[in-house]
Amino acid sequence: MSLNGYSLPRSPLGEANLVPAPPWHYVGDFLVIDYWADPEAVAAVLPPGLEPLPDDPGACAALFVDWQSCSDGGEELTDPSRSQYKEFFVVVNALLDGEQVTTCPYIWVDQDFALARGWVQGFPKKLGDIWITRAFDLNVTAAPGLAAGSRIGGTCSARGRRLAEGCVTLTGPSDGGPVHNDAPLVNVRYFPRLAAGRHESPAVHELVRAKSYDRSISQVWEGDAELELFAAPGEEHAALAPTRVGKGYRFTFAYTIDDLESVRSYAAEEVSS
Amino acid sequence: MSLNGYSLPRSPLGEANLVPAPPWHYVGDFLVIDYWADPEAVAAVLPPGLEPLPDDPGACAALFVDWQSCSDGGEELTDPSRSQYKEFFVVVNALLDGEQVTTCPYIWVDQDFALARGWVQGFPKKLGDIWITRAFDLNVTAAPGLAAGSRIGGTCSARGRRLAEGCVTLTGPSDGGPVHNDAPLVNVRYFPRLAAGRHESPAVHELVRAKSYDRSISQVWEGDAELELFAAPGEEHAALAPTRVGKGYRFTFAYTIDDLESVRSYAAEEVSS
Amino acid sequence: MSLNGYSLPRSPLGEANLVPAPPWHYVGDFLVIDYWADPEAVAAVLPPGLEPLPDDPGACAALFVDWQSCSDGGEELTDPSRSQYKEFFVVVNALLDGEQVTTCPYIWVDQDFALARGWVQGFPKKLGDIWITRAFDLNVTAAPGLAAGSRIGGTCSARGRRLAEGCVTLTGPSDGGPVHNDAPLVNVRYFPRLAAGRHESPAVHELVRAKSYDRSISQVWEGDAELELFAAPGEEHAALAPTRVGKGYRFTFAYTIDDLESVRSYAAEEVSS
Amino acid sequence: MSLNGYSLPRSPLGEANLVPAPPWHYVGDFLVIDYWADPEAVAAVLPPGLEPLPDDPGACAALFVDWQSCSDGGEELTDPSRSQYKEFFVVVNALLDGEQVTTCPYIWVDQDFALARGWVQGFPKKLGDIWITRAFDLNVTAAPGLAAGSRIGGTCSARGRRLAEGCVTLTGPSDGGPVHNDAPLVNVRYFPRLAAGRHESPAVHELVRAKSYDRSISQVWEGDAELELFAAPGEEHAALAPTRVGKGYRFTFAYTIDDLESVRSYAAEEVSS
Repeated sequence: MSLNGYSLPRSPLGEANLVPAPPWHYVGDFLVIDYWADPEAVAAVLPPGLEPLPDDPGACAALFVDWQSCSDGGEELTDPSRSQYKEFFVVVNALLDGEQVTTCPYIWVDQDFALARGWVQGFPKKLGDIWITRAFDLNVTAAPGLAAGSRIGGTCSARGRRLAEGCVTLTGPSDGGPVHNDAPLVNVRYFPRLAAGRHESPAVHELVRAKSYDRSISQVWEGDAELELFAAPGEEHAALAPTRVGKGYRFTFAYTIDDLESVRSYAAEEVSS
Repeated sequence: MSLNGYSLPRSPLGEANLVPAPPWHYVGDFLVIDYWADPEAVAAVLPPGLEPLPDDPGACAALFVDWQSCSDGGEELTDPSRSQYKEFFVVVNALLDGEQVTTCPYIWVDQDFALARGWVQGFPKKLGDIWITRAFDLNVTAAPGLAAGSRIGGTCSARGRRLAEGCVTLTGPSDGGPVHNDAPLVNVRYFPRLAAGRHESPAVHELVRAKSYDRSISQVWEGDAELELFAAPGEEHAALAPTRVGKGYRFTFAYTIDDLESVRSYAAEEVSS
Repeated sequence: MSLNGYSLPRSPLGEANLVPAPPWHYVGDFLVIDYWADPEAVAAVLPPGLEPLPDDPGACAALFVDWQSCSDGGEELTDPSRSQYKEFFVVVNALLDGEQVTTCPYIWVDQDFALARGWVQGFPKKLGDIWITRAFDLNVTAAPGLAAGSRIGGTCSARGRRLAEGCVTLTGPSDGGPVHNDAPLVNVRYFPRLAAGRHESPAVHELVRAKSYDRSISQVWEGDAELELFAAPGEEHAALAPTRVGKGYRFTFAYTIDDLESVRSYAAEEVSS
Repeated sequence: MSLNGYSLPRSPLGEANLVPAPPWHYVGDFLVIDYWADPEAVAAVLPPGLEPLPDDPGACAALFVDWQSCSDGGEELTDPSRSQYKEFFVVVNALLDGEQVTTCPYIWVDQDFALARGWVQGFPKKLGDIWITRAFDLNVTAAPGLAAGSRIGGTCSARGRRLAEGCVTLTGPSDGGPVHNDAPLVNVRYFPRLAAGRHESPAVHELVRAKSYDRSISQVWEGDAELELFAAPGEEHAALAPTRVGKGYRFTFAYTIDDLESVRSYAAEEVSS
């Protein structure tokens, strides 16, 4: 007999694991706000190997996403506490070996399976409460439609403190969609050690590049955006607060993930030190 | 100076009240399942003045709803923790003065403002966790579309126990929509007394009839339905568990409320006793 | 057959009600901070009939309480999601017919049964997240004991925003205990109407005086206190922010409630107007 | 400039990490129930290298714990949403190289920092709602004291389903305390890979042995125990449901952790395969 499952807890039938095995199929309503932060603050959150973007060193995006996801078979979809979650995150832009990339320094999510699935992909997720204005299939007072003048808000709080608020007032369909989260995404997979003397020598520490397929996207709406990031104890995202805010975008996006490319192992270097 | 606001807490500026003043504008994605329960169990939850429906005494509906709401001005919409909530409830059918009506014996909701707003309308709300499969603007693995074969689930739990699960497998557009929640809704407004000796003589106890306007509805999809109600300590809804399940329906519905009709005062009778 | 239960939902067996019938037995760990607010802000939250305290018009107390409660029989105690809750509230001092009283303008609590039970007693409860440092039966790093130098904190958040923070650094046993919450408590019972044209004519609107018995209290510790109240949309408690902070107190208190005294009916006056 | 912090997210100041650096100081109120499960079910959850206990192959314990914890400096203690959490877990007994040990196959916890801190130690934590009857410093109706006849309950739910319930009716002080969680604890540290083709070759997979110091314990009370484990989708703990229940115990326990001993690397074996 053996223990089975993609993540902990591994169990006889392999059904108890918090994160079922890939592939993972995602769909989400996105509220994305292109913005600029202090270039020094952006440089300060770049993992080793990434360099500030020479032309536009403060380029960031803030994303509020209302997700639904499942593994193959899709049984989570009709037990939606296992498939729905919301998250807020920031990406910054940088150069990796001369290529423009994005990386995610801070992200909050409201479900445990999404938190753990994020860690596996290098998203540094913590739990938070995220809310995003929803569109409905009716054009009524309580439902800001995808129409000029509609206002779509997003909020993120954690540990009882407000961390971020964004709002986009739609102006019309967008030709290009958001720019600041467009470059390929690289993140840091990291899993600490607890053995005495090795607390600073993580068991996993590598730069990874996201891979996905079956990507599809709805029409994109754009508009005028507002964004605030708020300081809180135990948080540093407010150093990336906007110095200038660009356009905001609202769209639906879907993809499937079952792979990740290792770009660079930091752990090897540390082991040698 | 005076205290202002529609509900508690009343405050100098009238901005702290849990439930802002009507009108209240609602929109929601509905998953409705027509079903039948034991006629005796239905009769047992009818408030005074309602009689069992002679022709169809066990007719019930189970509703899972994903709501967004606001008051005039709509400022809650961009701070969605103040506008979004989900709820599950059961309605049963009965006769009131010879007219077919529905009434709601049990309902759970996941936000405080909706709970209090429900009490004002005679909905006997308690807090719960409700989840409903969502449709998205893309036809992908993670998003069961409004299309034949799609499965839409709803779940309700409270105090860490599963109370209800429903699922509808869509077959196609519906001509008539749900039947068992179609009759006018009457509920019981109730607010207890705490004065010693008067615990059974509530301060408010009246049968009321819901009123609404600006009603609109999307296309309705229907399908084959499953429904289970589960017993739990401190709950009695499982006495209304299905003996037979009818069709299920999925649609979006909106309305506005700022009025309620008093049908019968129970309190007066009790005062005289 | 009839419907039974002290509160909604009323049901055949009377077991589904959110608030079981009194008496209600309470025990709680209290963190109380005596403080002073702007006297005009205090006057602004006094319900009709209360006058500012001439000698000390800004006297307030902030209370963080970690509660456990039950009804007769105590069955909730071994299913603690039905008996435990935490709350934060402010009381202000005033005169009622020449007698010093306290009244509670704002209060947050983290469980639905306590919210509804509060409304019945005139506490204007909304949901929030409240946390209070706990003492344990060991004197260790992770457990600030009831001893000089220990720091006991309390926090309150709602809708993802921090509303209050307090902290008491214990100095020693207290002779008298807290002062600003010592006078008898009067609150406003209030239940709105929804009938059109009568939204400002509540169905229940009366000033009530709390009654309790079987009161017991542990040894009281006191210390130096800090307190902050934070402004938030939809909240007005920050108008009562401290201008001066007195001592803080930590103790355990218990009582039983099954009665409430009606002091003055506001509704009658309004009906006549 | 570099990124700092013990866990993700690593940040310029090292203050944003979900799990601050060890040492971690813990104190908790424990409700422990010694019990026996089907020996085959116990054998089925043993990680490689552990063998069933020959003399007593079904020996298990169920633990409900109400924790408070902090890192050095203890600043989390006065912001208790960062220090308090509750958890429920099961341990089973086994042999490792001829020595009796325990291992934890399933555990639920209600805070993110404790979840991640658990993963680092090899506890396979998922989020859940855990409740435990509390004792207070008063002997009153609402507070079952540490006294003969007092009933202390524990419950665990996750994803809206009840997973476990336990209750201990105290009979008196205990000489020895619980037996089934007494042997040294070994767990499995595990961090998956997402690279295609390597989903079954985790990045971290090792058997570890817990180490702690500054251990202290209060007087232990014991009593008659009840325990139920409930099946749920996505869970397998109910295979370890009790076939016989032993005594239950209630006590307070504290310790400090900053080390972990690696007993056996499974990853190396897998890499070679």
